[in-house]
Amino acid sequence: MKTKIAIVDTMFARGDMGKVAIETMEKNAKENNWEIEIMKKTVPGIKDIPVALLNLLEQGCQAGIALGMPGAAKVDKTCAHEASLGIQEVQLMTRKTVLEVFVHEDEAKDDKDLAEIMHNRASKHALNLLWVIFKPEELEKRAGSGERQGRENTKSVGL
Amino acid sequence: MKTKIAIVDTMFARGDMGKVAIETMEKNAKENNWEIEIMKKTVPGIKDIPVALLNLLEQGCQAGIALGMPGAAKVDKTCAHEASLGIQEVQLMTRKTVLEVFVHEDEAKDDKDLAEIMHNRASKHALNLLWVIFKPEELEKRAGSGERQGRENTKSVGL
Amino acid sequence: MKTKIAIVDTMFARGDMGKVAIETMEKNAKENNWEIEIMKKTVPGIKDIPVALLNLLEQGCQAGIALGMPGAAKVDKTCAHEASLGIQEVQLMTRKTVLEVFVHEDEAKDDKDLAEIMHNRASKHALNLLWVIFKPEELEKRAGSGERQGRENTKSVGL
Amino acid sequence: MKTKIAIVDTMFARGDMGKVAIETMEKNAKENNWEIEIMKKTVPGIKDIPVALLNLLEQGCQAGIALGMPGAAKVDKTCAHEASLGIQEVQLMTRKTVLEVFVHEDEAKDDKDLAEIMHNRASKHALNLLWVIFKPEELEKRAGSGERQGRENTKSVGL
Amino acid sequence: MKTKIAIVDTMFARGDMGKVAIETMEKNAKENNWEIEIMKKTVPGIKDIPVALLNLLEQGCQAGIALGMPGAAKVDKTCAHEASLGIQEVQLMTRKTVLEVFVHEDEAKDDKDLAEIMHNRASKHALNLLWVIFKPEELEKRAGSGERQGRENTKSVGL
Repeated sequence: MKTKIAIVDTMFARGDMGKVAIETMEKNAKENNWEIEIMKKTVPGIKDIPVALLNLLEQGCQAGIALGMPGAAKVDKTCAHEASLGIQEVQLMTRKTVLEVFVHEDEAKDDKDLAEIMHNRASKHALNLLWVIFKPEELEKRAGSGERQGRENTKSVGL
Repeated sequence: MKTKIAIVDTMFARGDMGKVAIETMEKNAKENNWEIEIMKKTVPGIKDIPVALLNLLEQGCQAGIALGMPGAAKVDKTCAHEASLGIQEVQLMTRKTVLEVFVHEDEAKDDKDLAEIMHNRASKHALNLLWVIFKPEELEKRAGSGERQGRENTKSVGL
Repeated sequence: MKTKIAIVDTMFARGDMGKVAIETMEKNAKENNWEIEIMKKTVPGIKDIPVALLNLLEQGCQAGIALGMPGAAKVDKTCAHEASLGIQEVQLMTRKTVLEVFVHEDEAKDDKDLAEIMHNRASKHALNLLWVIFKPEELEKRAGSGERQGRENTKSVGL
Repeated sequence: MKTKIAIVDTMFARGDMGKVAIETMEKNAKENNWEIEIMKKTVPGIKDIPVALLNLLEQGCQAGIALGMPGAAKVDKTCAHEASLGIQEVQLMTRKTVLEVFVHEDEAKDDKDLAEIMHNRASKHALNLLWVIFKPEELEKRAGSGERQGRENTKSVGL
Repeated sequence: MKTKIAIVDTMFARGDMGKVAIETMEKNAKENNWEIEIMKKTVPGIKDIPVALLNLLEQGCQAGIALGMPGAAKVDKTCAHEASLGIQEVQLMTRKTVLEVFVHEDEAKDDKDLAEIMHNRASKHALNLLWVIFKPEELEKRAGSGERQGRENTKSVGL
């Protein structure tokens, strides 16, 4: 039986992160013989993500990804915070992992940079989610290593 | 059987967004032969919206719209945040979508601008809610396209 | 049978808003032949309001009013936010409306102004709560009209 | 049968508020012939208070006090906010009152002042909690009177 | 039967706090003849901690530790706050203690300092968690004593 994975993205975002996430997942799943089935839904904005995810997870998805792009204004930051709290709640209600892939519009210097961050973060987290489901030891061996999504990794400090 | 839709608005707001939302829904429902029945309730202010919505959704509405206008003061922003968290909770309790249509008083340059933003956002989200219920493929095909409600759309960046 | 209404106020507040709310409710209830019974409780500060309200609502009150006066310091604003989130939760747990009547100490120019705001807001919301319970059409017809509690109403903008 | 009261304090705080609270409660309980039994627990920091309180309240305590001292840094303020939200939740889960006695380190001019605020607030709220349980009319008659814990009372304004 | 303890850490953190926590626990457990079994999980970032902890606690762990390193940017602080609220919720759902060991990247002067804080805080809280489970009297006798994790202790003020 295939493992169902939920992806929810928005009309508001300025780039098709859903497409990137799906391509990354399908490529990696194929290489590793992981049988997956992606259930995707698009909502207007980030605050509409939590209930859409809850529905997909309760319809049998084993884990999910939330893709969104909060704007640069203060009110957008508040929206992102509210969406994130909703996503926390959804995870605790379902006991299932949802990786949140939010790219803040003001993280980027320009549109090219924005596109790169969106691509980098969506693809890395798509792979992370597969590891959460199929290969947790990939996460274990990177514990405390300074992994980043969206930019280059940073370095670890010896304890 | 008609699909029931909940609309909750406030006395506090400085424009009748409920009327705009209803007109938009009825016009579009008629054009598409979608049978809808709108259940509307008015409450004093935005913090009174969540419980009113919960009641309407538990009385059979399939989805809802929250219409409000937070003021420009800091305390009003906090109120909006509290109302938004309540609306998140209502959606997770009922598993039903509620689109939040808040127009912040300080988004606008003047009263004319305020009226335009209120009209634009209320009508666009009224249509979005119909799509959520009856035609999700309209949302799917706009994924990551930079759609905005209240102002003009922005542009997408290639990933 | 009389309709029970919960009122919770605090020792911390610098004015007896509970007295104003009760007088307004009793006067209006009498004029309209609405049979009400008020159950009132006083707690130390605003953060003690939510659980007191929950108890009164679960003991049969149909709706409630929370009366409080947050101080001017930043920590007081945070307390008010926490109390408000608790009041949201209480409403969603009980499916009952609670109108929050908070007067922030720094809204006022001086003590006289503070007294006026407290009186105005407490009495207007006391009447609003009666409308929520007995006469929702009074709220309906004021939708989007710019009603304010504590100060004068503002004006509506045509959409 | 004795009424059980929960007290939770922290190792982080810079003063033994638990001792003050217990002494105040035992003295007042004796004078009024109120039979109480105090169940006390110490946790590392304020964010560890909510679950400890929940356990004590579910083990039969009728009400509780949370004693903590948030530091002056911004991250400490956030911790206090998170702890306070947890304490709100605990009260709504158990339907029992918990008075939160937090003394922020930056409320005080110096160590002597800090000690005085801690003593004043802990003892006043210890008495408040006894009133909540045994003598609510003491709270009722101080409604809107400007009572403060930690500093001198302020004055009420006529409405 | 061994007491199971949950540890969740992240790939994002720039130091292997999980290793420090485990070493501290195993050393102290051995010295005191406490039988423990550690169940450890690594997740991408701090917001992925709450649901992972919930799963481990529901699989039989009696208590847990959350190890994370929020970055210095404002968005990282918001993430930390959201993770902390999730951890609060997990504790209240399970009635079990989770000590949160977050080291903010901007607490440190440089990488060496960061490593020292991470080591100090992880080891001290690892011991605290053992005390919570096996020897609460160690916590009791340090009530209000100004204990710190990450830096040196501060001093207590006489009340």
